[in-house]
Amino acid sequence: MHYVVIMAGGSGTRLWPLSRQGRPKQLLEIFEGRSLLRMAYERLAGVVPAANILVCTGRAYAEDVARQLPELGSGNILGEPEGRDSLNAVAWSAAEIARRDPDAVVAMVTADQVITPVDEFQGALRTAFEVAETVPGALVTLGVVPTSPHVGYGYLHRAEEIAGFPGVHRVAEFKEKPTLEVAEEYLASGRYWWNAGMFVWRAETLLSQLDQLLPDTAATVREIAAHPERLDDLFPTLRRISVDYAVMEPASVGATDAQVISVPLAVDWKDVGGFLSLAELLSTDEHGNAVDGRHVALDSSGCVVVNSMGPDHLVATMGLSDCLVVATPSATLVARLADAERVKELVSLVRTHVGAEFA
Amino acid sequence: MHYVVIMAGGSGTRLWPLSRQGRPKQLLEIFEGRSLLRMAYERLAGVVPAANILVCTGRAYAEDVARQLPELGSGNILGEPEGRDSLNAVAWSAAEIARRDPDAVVAMVTADQVITPVDEFQGALRTAFEVAETVPGALVTLGVVPTSPHVGYGYLHRAEEIAGFPGVHRVAEFKEKPTLEVAEEYLASGRYWWNAGMFVWRAETLLSQLDQLLPDTAATVREIAAHPERLDDLFPTLRRISVDYAVMEPASVGATDAQVISVPLAVDWKDVGGFLSLAELLSTDEHGNAVDGRHVALDSSGCVVVNSMGPDHLVATMGLSDCLVVATPSATLVARLADAERVKELVSLVRTHVGAEFA
Repeated sequence: MHYVVIMAGGSGTRLWPLSRQGRPKQLLEIFEGRSLLRMAYERLAGVVPAANILVCTGRAYAEDVARQLPELGSGNILGEPEGRDSLNAVAWSAAEIARRDPDAVVAMVTADQVITPVDEFQGALRTAFEVAETVPGALVTLGVVPTSPHVGYGYLHRAEEIAGFPGVHRVAEFKEKPTLEVAEEYLASGRYWWNAGMFVWRAETLLSQLDQLLPDTAATVREIAAHPERLDDLFPTLRRISVDYAVMEPASVGATDAQVISVPLAVDWKDVGGFLSLAELLSTDEHGNAVDGRHVALDSSGCVVVNSMGPDHLVATMGLSDCLVVATPSATLVARLADAERVKELVSLVRTHVGAEFA
Repeated sequence: MHYVVIMAGGSGTRLWPLSRQGRPKQLLEIFEGRSLLRMAYERLAGVVPAANILVCTGRAYAEDVARQLPELGSGNILGEPEGRDSLNAVAWSAAEIARRDPDAVVAMVTADQVITPVDEFQGALRTAFEVAETVPGALVTLGVVPTSPHVGYGYLHRAEEIAGFPGVHRVAEFKEKPTLEVAEEYLASGRYWWNAGMFVWRAETLLSQLDQLLPDTAATVREIAAHPERLDDLFPTLRRISVDYAVMEPASVGATDAQVISVPLAVDWKDVGGFLSLAELLSTDEHGNAVDGRHVALDSSGCVVVNSMGPDHLVATMGLSDCLVVATPSATLVARLADAERVKELVSLVRTHVGAEFA
């Protein structure tokens, strides 16, 4: 059977005050009331049965996840007692699903993006399931076909095509985030894809990789799957590491018996990191203001306005250019757009000077 | 007996969204929870008995006034059914107080300013009461001794000193708001004072002036005082005119048997018109941001921040200079300070494009 786990961990500091106390950005209902998590869920319609969709998130957010995805089975929220990087979300998910279904093929998908068209995404995901099911020892990663020399992503250096799967390639190497010059070379060569952080594998394949690379982790997640009551004791003992460092990179260079394969994903890939990338997803008024929620402008242009106070609150701007305005019930942020990436710094100032309850 | 009427009418469009639907700015609790009305009331302590203080305001605001001034006698709020300019507030107050006390001497004071030191104000008010009581037919107006060539005020051109009252002068002429050049001449001459819009007179003196100048108004306000149940019928029939045009200017040029006298007021006179003047009254942080309410700044300077959302809401600014941020439960305004005086224009845009309920 095919399963999908939506990863909705991490924190949303860069979107403060939309996010508070590290609430994951995937749960923020900022797109006319819909969250990235909800969009990621709806993106899976028809690819796997609804009962086979799980969400891995922080336990503190399980209630929010259940509210946003009422269709989700109650056992299908994996609530981590604490965040311990991506490997452990992936490993625990694999162990839990393998316990339910030893032949399971599992896709681990992110919910940090707006992806269009959905058809294209679903096609790639179906191909990835097929590769993972067919090719022995396959660790499949989705590779976004680059549309720009982006320096904010890692890259996959693709090698030869996989027999029987036109366009699907073995991954020769994982590349760290490049300089602009290098990114331009990657783009021109046509041999590099963005590392999307989405994976498909047989649950048992992933677990056997862990047996070889991180046997402690493998044993611990199997123990948690078998004895869920031990989750709180065991989860915090897991080594904090990313799945790329722990598994994908070693496997790509032949350190194990697996092979890393990438399925191309030719979509419009909009990552919602900070407010600048969020702004690209909002609708724009005639003066180039990207707006979500109720807003009126008098001679304002090039601003990003996010009004999350609901329909009874109006944000009005006058004579403003290239500014960011974010209004939420607990805090209002006004900044130069040029400073939008400094939100983390501001949040730390808020924490020390005003109080952690506002951060 | 001495009486004081605090005038708290007018609208506060220029302070939107602090004020909404024309709520008078005097009632806005923007100075750490205190309103200009409350400050005006406290400024009178010891000058007249508390029972002799009245407030003239729009009827719609009577409840707010009573809440802000719980010491006020219940019959001491004069609620106008509609605003009909300053003469009618003044005339109705005189008629009502004359009915209670035919020998009453009445001071009409404004609540649009922050005035320091209070001692100086009280001294001038006491002198004004004495002049009004002693000099037959005296219409006393307070004249603020100018500290700058302000072009936003009318000026009083003083004539000879009044015998027995050193420093107190007859007013030769009322001058409209001058050009800067003219205002500089006024300031240099030392013979012009700002028209403060505060008056002291015997109630019967004012009413007898009205008998001569606007007999219909005189008759109507006497009728209202005698038959308060006719207020709603009669008040709207009063001619809409300012007390300066109707009484003070004609009397100053000898059109009646009164004499217009000005008592100097040597105070720091801060008029709260729009946000720029409001800003001068707020405390300033080390980066020159004028702030009321909870605010944290990262590299912001020269801003005006008014957070009226209460202590559970934080306004954070980052990299912002010379901007205005006003956060209220119903609306948030963000503007260039250079545009702060365009708030009326914005409010009219809000009314037509968003809805009157937000204006």
